[in-house]
Amino acid sequence: MPDNVAEACVEFNHHLLTLRLRGTVRRMSTPDSTATPQDPRFESRVRDSFALQTVMATLGAALSRVAPGEVDIALPFRADLAQQHGFVHAGILATILDSACGYAAFTLMPADAAVLSIEFKINLLSPAAGERFIARGRVLRSGRTISVCQAYGFAISGGAEKLIATMQGTMMCVRDNPALRG
Amino acid sequence: MPDNVAEACVEFNHHLLTLRLRGTVRRMSTPDSTATPQDPRFESRVRDSFALQTVMATLGAALSRVAPGEVDIALPFRADLAQQHGFVHAGILATILDSACGYAAFTLMPADAAVLSIEFKINLLSPAAGERFIARGRVLRSGRTISVCQAYGFAISGGAEKLIATMQGTMMCVRDNPALRG
Amino acid sequence: MPDNVAEACVEFNHHLLTLRLRGTVRRMSTPDSTATPQDPRFESRVRDSFALQTVMATLGAALSRVAPGEVDIALPFRADLAQQHGFVHAGILATILDSACGYAAFTLMPADAAVLSIEFKINLLSPAAGERFIARGRVLRSGRTISVCQAYGFAISGGAEKLIATMQGTMMCVRDNPALRG
Amino acid sequence: MPDNVAEACVEFNHHLLTLRLRGTVRRMSTPDSTATPQDPRFESRVRDSFALQTVMATLGAALSRVAPGEVDIALPFRADLAQQHGFVHAGILATILDSACGYAAFTLMPADAAVLSIEFKINLLSPAAGERFIARGRVLRSGRTISVCQAYGFAISGGAEKLIATMQGTMMCVRDNPALRG
Repeated sequence: MPDNVAEACVEFNHHLLTLRLRGTVRRMSTPDSTATPQDPRFESRVRDSFALQTVMATLGAALSRVAPGEVDIALPFRADLAQQHGFVHAGILATILDSACGYAAFTLMPADAAVLSIEFKINLLSPAAGERFIARGRVLRSGRTISVCQAYGFAISGGAEKLIATMQGTMMCVRDNPALRG
Repeated sequence: MPDNVAEACVEFNHHLLTLRLRGTVRRMSTPDSTATPQDPRFESRVRDSFALQTVMATLGAALSRVAPGEVDIALPFRADLAQQHGFVHAGILATILDSACGYAAFTLMPADAAVLSIEFKINLLSPAAGERFIARGRVLRSGRTISVCQAYGFAISGGAEKLIATMQGTMMCVRDNPALRG
Repeated sequence: MPDNVAEACVEFNHHLLTLRLRGTVRRMSTPDSTATPQDPRFESRVRDSFALQTVMATLGAALSRVAPGEVDIALPFRADLAQQHGFVHAGILATILDSACGYAAFTLMPADAAVLSIEFKINLLSPAAGERFIARGRVLRSGRTISVCQAYGFAISGGAEKLIATMQGTMMCVRDNPALRG
Repeated sequence: MPDNVAEACVEFNHHLLTLRLRGTVRRMSTPDSTATPQDPRFESRVRDSFALQTVMATLGAALSRVAPGEVDIALPFRADLAQQHGFVHAGILATILDSACGYAAFTLMPADAAVLSIEFKINLLSPAAGERFIARGRVLRSGRTISVCQAYGFAISGGAEKLIATMQGTMMCVRDNPALRG
């Protein structure tokens, strides 16, 4: 990564947050960084839970990446998911960004945990026009009860990715409710 | 409305915001209250635009009320819109709350305007379990370019309504883009 | 409250949420409504904790009302709290709205609890110009761990109140950290 | 930046947004990237406007960096800015993060523009304990009217930086109001 294009950079995986400013790399621990997931079977837990989210099949969304503290979800464009101008509806984008946040947090939770969204906030930067869309969720802080995540939404057209939405959300780890698993 | 049940109350239609505290009614003008919509055909503009939102038919959502500064959208429960525990996905709720906000703002915009969501934030108060759901959007401030809205999401079961989600969002009035109408 | 001025109304004290639409009053229980605070000494707990918030004295802010699920904080205008145009800075408004949310939630928490802000979102509806400002915080949902609140910020000039800001935030009840009280 | 510590990275200056995943660098243009500020005197405009924010002197905050699309603000700890547990109040952190967002956006605005905050949302990741604090604001999208920014808040103790807060906000470029400059 040449210095002349990278003035500021935040790495926000769960290990390390780095802010690159004018070519100088500063490393800072995140508040509750965890070197390894508590549950080595985190990926299958995420895939099993995602398979239960019936809305994902209804929308045509699929898990495209599962890593500690990071989950990506892909959604091909469909004309029947549009708002009034023919772009994908902001709420549908929010659906995949929210799940990307939730499952990113879920990768770092204990094996018996369920994950719930407490809240999220999304900014729409550009209309959701493209062949397909990717939501990339990342954990900023993984706490015992509360996890804070970001997700970035990209539109892909002709091989180029464009940032079209950004989310900041709060996820909850639930362990004492036998009715909630995954 | 007996005083003993109503200690605090905010009326947030576009005419008037009232805060009732301990039985005393205080009336305050909203920052940009507008007595009447700029376009008397606001309802048909909303209904025409809603009909273009293909995602609404895909989800089974319908406009249930259009008034100046206020729009409600109803969504029957469907098992194929669920997250992993069988509740309606937070993003699907956000979809109808966002449209309720956007169209509430749209009722107060001029006839040639298009409406776009800049951002929204939603809190999930309780799992979205119920026979059907209603999103009630209301304008807090209607400005020339920026409108600020709230929406409240309710679950309906056996005739009882329960508040399950609340949204605060920012909508934009676009008038200079010929590609965007409605 | 005459019907012709009140088309939509939400009462959001902790007992009851009511939505008035076109003169019809619908009553709905809030998700976790609590008829009475768990701790009858809630008001003194709020006042003691507020007195420890040194920033409130620094800003000149004062508690003006404490009721179950509802707390108001007043702030006189001061020229040394301004942003570049001479209005009170949005972050200073956010400071009193956040504390109003936190203490509104705190009134419904058990006697040994501490309250922390997880997150908040504020919309600025109009510049903060006025003789003084009031933040009115209200609980929408009071849960065991998570409370969801709204706060409304008003500017007061010549006896008239104007809505200038609205907040939606998430507060946490902490009971297991001996270092945190109040 | 060694590959083994940097799995995911977003560069979010106004030139370029890059997401590094597992050592692969993907470059994506931001929606409205601008290679150079419209006004070459952007830094003095920011410094002049900041000097008018009287609240910054009241809090003891100072501009520590101004670059295209990026502004940092530093705040030494002061016991008279605390919440009830002795940490800096979330609203005071929000004050410097909001100004960092606003001035980051302002660097990319035309010479006659004024900047106003429409809204912001902040997550508090850890208590604001430390010797001093830095808010690093960055532009994600710079539009003609609307700019979307992020700010990250760090606590500094013994030379180590810790991420304690993250903000996502919307800023407005105002050009037609003679009463608002800067």
